[in-house]
Amino acid sequence: MEAARIIRVNEPLEIQNLDTPKPKGSQVLIKVQSSGVCHSDIHLWEGGYEGVGGQIIKTTDRGVKYPLTPGHEIAGIIESMGEDVEGFAKNEKVIVFPWIGEGLCPACRIGEENLCDKPRSLGVYNDGGYAEYVIVPSYKYLVKIGDMDTDASAPLSCSALTAYGAVKNTQLKPNDNVVIVGAGGLGLMAMQLTKAVTGAKIIAMDIDDGKLEVAKQNGADFIVNSKKEDPIKAIMELTDKLGADAVIDFVNAGKTVETDMQILRRRARVVLVGLFGGALQLNLVTIPTRAYKIIGSYTGSMNDLVELVSLAKRGVIKPIISNRFKLSQATEALTMLKAGKIIGRGVINP
Amino acid sequence: MEAARIIRVNEPLEIQNLDTPKPKGSQVLIKVQSSGVCHSDIHLWEGGYEGVGGQIIKTTDRGVKYPLTPGHEIAGIIESMGEDVEGFAKNEKVIVFPWIGEGLCPACRIGEENLCDKPRSLGVYNDGGYAEYVIVPSYKYLVKIGDMDTDASAPLSCSALTAYGAVKNTQLKPNDNVVIVGAGGLGLMAMQLTKAVTGAKIIAMDIDDGKLEVAKQNGADFIVNSKKEDPIKAIMELTDKLGADAVIDFVNAGKTVETDMQILRRRARVVLVGLFGGALQLNLVTIPTRAYKIIGSYTGSMNDLVELVSLAKRGVIKPIISNRFKLSQATEALTMLKAGKIIGRGVINP
Amino acid sequence: MEAARIIRVNEPLEIQNLDTPKPKGSQVLIKVQSSGVCHSDIHLWEGGYEGVGGQIIKTTDRGVKYPLTPGHEIAGIIESMGEDVEGFAKNEKVIVFPWIGEGLCPACRIGEENLCDKPRSLGVYNDGGYAEYVIVPSYKYLVKIGDMDTDASAPLSCSALTAYGAVKNTQLKPNDNVVIVGAGGLGLMAMQLTKAVTGAKIIAMDIDDGKLEVAKQNGADFIVNSKKEDPIKAIMELTDKLGADAVIDFVNAGKTVETDMQILRRRARVVLVGLFGGALQLNLVTIPTRAYKIIGSYTGSMNDLVELVSLAKRGVIKPIISNRFKLSQATEALTMLKAGKIIGRGVINP
Amino acid sequence: MEAARIIRVNEPLEIQNLDTPKPKGSQVLIKVQSSGVCHSDIHLWEGGYEGVGGQIIKTTDRGVKYPLTPGHEIAGIIESMGEDVEGFAKNEKVIVFPWIGEGLCPACRIGEENLCDKPRSLGVYNDGGYAEYVIVPSYKYLVKIGDMDTDASAPLSCSALTAYGAVKNTQLKPNDNVVIVGAGGLGLMAMQLTKAVTGAKIIAMDIDDGKLEVAKQNGADFIVNSKKEDPIKAIMELTDKLGADAVIDFVNAGKTVETDMQILRRRARVVLVGLFGGALQLNLVTIPTRAYKIIGSYTGSMNDLVELVSLAKRGVIKPIISNRFKLSQATEALTMLKAGKIIGRGVINP
Repeated sequence: MEAARIIRVNEPLEIQNLDTPKPKGSQVLIKVQSSGVCHSDIHLWEGGYEGVGGQIIKTTDRGVKYPLTPGHEIAGIIESMGEDVEGFAKNEKVIVFPWIGEGLCPACRIGEENLCDKPRSLGVYNDGGYAEYVIVPSYKYLVKIGDMDTDASAPLSCSALTAYGAVKNTQLKPNDNVVIVGAGGLGLMAMQLTKAVTGAKIIAMDIDDGKLEVAKQNGADFIVNSKKEDPIKAIMELTDKLGADAVIDFVNAGKTVETDMQILRRRARVVLVGLFGGALQLNLVTIPTRAYKIIGSYTGSMNDLVELVSLAKRGVIKPIISNRFKLSQATEALTMLKAGKIIGRGVINP
Repeated sequence: MEAARIIRVNEPLEIQNLDTPKPKGSQVLIKVQSSGVCHSDIHLWEGGYEGVGGQIIKTTDRGVKYPLTPGHEIAGIIESMGEDVEGFAKNEKVIVFPWIGEGLCPACRIGEENLCDKPRSLGVYNDGGYAEYVIVPSYKYLVKIGDMDTDASAPLSCSALTAYGAVKNTQLKPNDNVVIVGAGGLGLMAMQLTKAVTGAKIIAMDIDDGKLEVAKQNGADFIVNSKKEDPIKAIMELTDKLGADAVIDFVNAGKTVETDMQILRRRARVVLVGLFGGALQLNLVTIPTRAYKIIGSYTGSMNDLVELVSLAKRGVIKPIISNRFKLSQATEALTMLKAGKIIGRGVINP
Repeated sequence: MEAARIIRVNEPLEIQNLDTPKPKGSQVLIKVQSSGVCHSDIHLWEGGYEGVGGQIIKTTDRGVKYPLTPGHEIAGIIESMGEDVEGFAKNEKVIVFPWIGEGLCPACRIGEENLCDKPRSLGVYNDGGYAEYVIVPSYKYLVKIGDMDTDASAPLSCSALTAYGAVKNTQLKPNDNVVIVGAGGLGLMAMQLTKAVTGAKIIAMDIDDGKLEVAKQNGADFIVNSKKEDPIKAIMELTDKLGADAVIDFVNAGKTVETDMQILRRRARVVLVGLFGGALQLNLVTIPTRAYKIIGSYTGSMNDLVELVSLAKRGVIKPIISNRFKLSQATEALTMLKAGKIIGRGVINP
Repeated sequence: MEAARIIRVNEPLEIQNLDTPKPKGSQVLIKVQSSGVCHSDIHLWEGGYEGVGGQIIKTTDRGVKYPLTPGHEIAGIIESMGEDVEGFAKNEKVIVFPWIGEGLCPACRIGEENLCDKPRSLGVYNDGGYAEYVIVPSYKYLVKIGDMDTDASAPLSCSALTAYGAVKNTQLKPNDNVVIVGAGGLGLMAMQLTKAVTGAKIIAMDIDDGKLEVAKQNGADFIVNSKKEDPIKAIMELTDKLGADAVIDFVNAGKTVETDMQILRRRARVVLVGLFGGALQLNLVTIPTRAYKIIGSYTGSMNDLVELVSLAKRGVIKPIISNRFKLSQATEALTMLKAGKIIGRGVINP
């Protein structure tokens, strides 16, 4: 089978011809039809993230090994199954939960494998979906998508799941307002989800008027262009001088979080999601006296994915797919994403 | 009535002779028998806290007005009552919940008046317990203490309540471990409470061997002197190289929190309580990838206080009172506390 | 002022001329503009509910005293205020939270006054809104409604609040289905709310095709006429033979709950709301082996009401008002309601 | 290998010689050292439970197939492992989580396999621990017990787990009181656990003075012999006429639950655990007006078991083992248990 792989960081991905895996036990072999292209794939490609003081946190220090087939947003059909697989049939359309854990840590024990101590995520620690086939360690990580489109379904397992996990972490009530920072693919999905399951008032913040217009169509009640107007003043006006009950920051850069911390109502939750990187000078006394909560949100659980598929099947949420690529265009896809030229989500069709 | 008041910041408290208030409506006049001396009284006395870069956050900017009678840990007997008071009788022994809110914000609506948008706490925004009498706006802020000692009961309403709020914010499970930073009055009470209601494993951290010995008697399973040994190495060893599931930091200074952030297991909760002040350089990417939660914890709710009184009445927890002062010794009490010479809790008996 | 009062149970209400109360302290006098007519007013009028074996639970045994001015769904404008009232102004439009508690029990301590041990609800234990004026014990029980219509707002404080409390008690997730039994005023509002804040799939059940048609417009995904088809078979078909994840029963009669218990998936929540009465023969072993939860739901909290007002202001929910009455028509209003002739909600305009 | 099996209901168990299974994939073969004897084994032996009106709910209707090797409380050492097993070694001492689910239902997705739609529990739907060896489908169902005794550990996976699940379902706060009905093995463990992790006040109720004495040593603050005194009056006196905040009924017979329903404070939780059987005439109106919750509690989750092992390792809880049997004495063990002659827990040592 063909796979687009990162052989060395920062070099073009190579199309390699690999043996097609044979599933055994509970394993399932998926014929990939759609594999989403995610910002974190860029970090894998670049070999790291930016930490404090410009220092780089290397992916290899976090356990990533190259060569690697990236791709953790995988939708396709079941090609073959190990002898212990139950409840699935050949040719069924599924998406894959890629945030697989070791199964023994407290997170895994309560179904939060995405937060496992020793993660073995597909497309990160194991080969993923930039390939014709991918092997999934157990049928328990599959969700049937019925007659949904695989292109629209693939991003449910990371883009939408991350947005959903973040929305859940805000614990929004209907009389809350939430500022969603970054009106890209994740931000827009977070707006749709906030609308669908919380009843809260949504304020979208971005530096791009075009994106903010799209935000309105995805559920934003108010928009703030933080490049054109003072974001702190704008939020205070929109919240009766009280501040935001919650902020979800899909950028999570020093500059955005610095603003976040100045627009908060007492008891506010600041949910940090993005991997842009950098550092924040955190005023320590303010945290207890204002009873703030700063919450790191990382993807979501298998159960969250099942909930998302349920919402997507009924049309309550609608992932936005904007660009389609062939397997041979994997490098091009990552390059475009890095340059900010993909609105919504890009998908590779191997 | 006599009251020990802060007239001007950083000057000795003055004993003033004030009119004894007359309760009306739902108000209750308490004859103060015991008024705890709290670290935050020092901040009121000094007029501020240390923020980022040594900058001072002034108490007057947060709404405090001088002259002020401090004292928010108040136990005494009911002297007289307004005509609408129900369920209480003259001479009944009570403690006072001082963290009174305006009653209209979302926090107040769910019984978390301690986190009100517009707090009117006794001893902070209104005159408190360093006085012979204190007026309480409603009988709803009183808890009967039966035949409990007022000296031992007074600290329940702040010292123990703050410890309890912090313990609740950690959401400890029996297979969790928690590092409690600071084995002073609050830390020791947090250990007692963790022992009483969570089943978690407790690691006490301090720089004073004497305090750490007391920690053992209050429930600590393990102790770490972070002055004598490398705290990061010590915690990793005590946690099978996994890190702490939770940290409660009763110091909350730049230096302690910097250590806190390096001893965390994935999904860890860092509960910041202390008002020591300073700043932390926060590595932003780590927050989502490690799924950390940084939680500011500020005192506790009226209901938490009722729970504490229940525990104290049955001897499950035992506040530690170490020093007793007369009203005229208020300045001395604050001076001793500031100098770190009070172990447990100091109490003024007006 | 005039008030329509129950002097003796089962006799026509009398219009009496009473002294208009004068507010003091935190009290507020409301000029009633709209007072909803609720099923539980009928129970007050009849003097009781049906318990086990046809036995009557008398309202007087539960602390109700006659003569009584009923009416707990009250919207109006502020006429005058006691000297301690804050944050409100004369002529402001408000609705009243009528489920007032004593303030000292554990329910009250966490803001659930509606579940107080010693309730003093307006229109039940104290005079309510079937009158030109009503006195409210504290401004803390008022919610500003801005320019919303008082007729549409009044039912928020019981009809919608009860529906909301019930929906919250089901703890619905987006991949859950919920059967809502009874497509009357409360049922329809529960459908709107389920749609607005849960993402769950809604199955409406009733015995009236007309009501079921309205249910569809209020958010029901599927409808079942339990008179025309076998409800158990119908629910099983709609749920892939798995059964309902949750049931909200707004009738709560022996017959409906008997059906409820036969359509449940393992772990299902059965939320009982209605006061129709009667008894159920409960199979005890099934409760643990199937892990069922039977949850009694009674109105909602002050905070829930604030959330509802927020949703109504933004048009997310829309109470349905169908009949308007003068104060002198109070008996007629109750008679029509009892006869099932009011669809949506009837409102008295004093 | 030898196994004590139920061939036909109500007949003595037979010792059969079966092929010792060979583990493959993630499977693990355990050499059983201790297998607890549980009340539900009697139901398997008798072929059913008592439902409404004396009607029998047959085990075969719930999917049980005979011949069956019972035994779901299994502790032993690892004999051999499939090729995919990780994190375990031959000869390690473990206990087994027997409440295995299919893995695809919502319960399994959140780590509550014990509440799976299609359970495949060991010793119930698959062969269990009344045998020299037992095969476990995955190493993920094992918990290491270090140097703990296998006899004392085995009951953690059902007896203690069921008690723990019940205690969790009560959601006890430190100022709550809880009535624990039935001071047998489960009741005593529930008392230990309530003491260890809730801080609530415990009232033990039973009809046997001897058992009630043991209850006191296991954490009961008060005891009530419901045979000798009026239980309703007794509970009301012990709770200041307020009633119980929660009841855990380890008997769950018509008679006990009838009493339970009469000792409840408003908002009380009634947790039903026992499988004694029978029916209750439930007064429907009372459920909403009193805001009661009736909660079925069935064993506990894998994560709960991990928490229990943590508590047991540190001696916070202490399972009580009273009788030891050989494999050939399985019928005798069940007979003694049925006759109420086992205090604490009986264990088979194959």
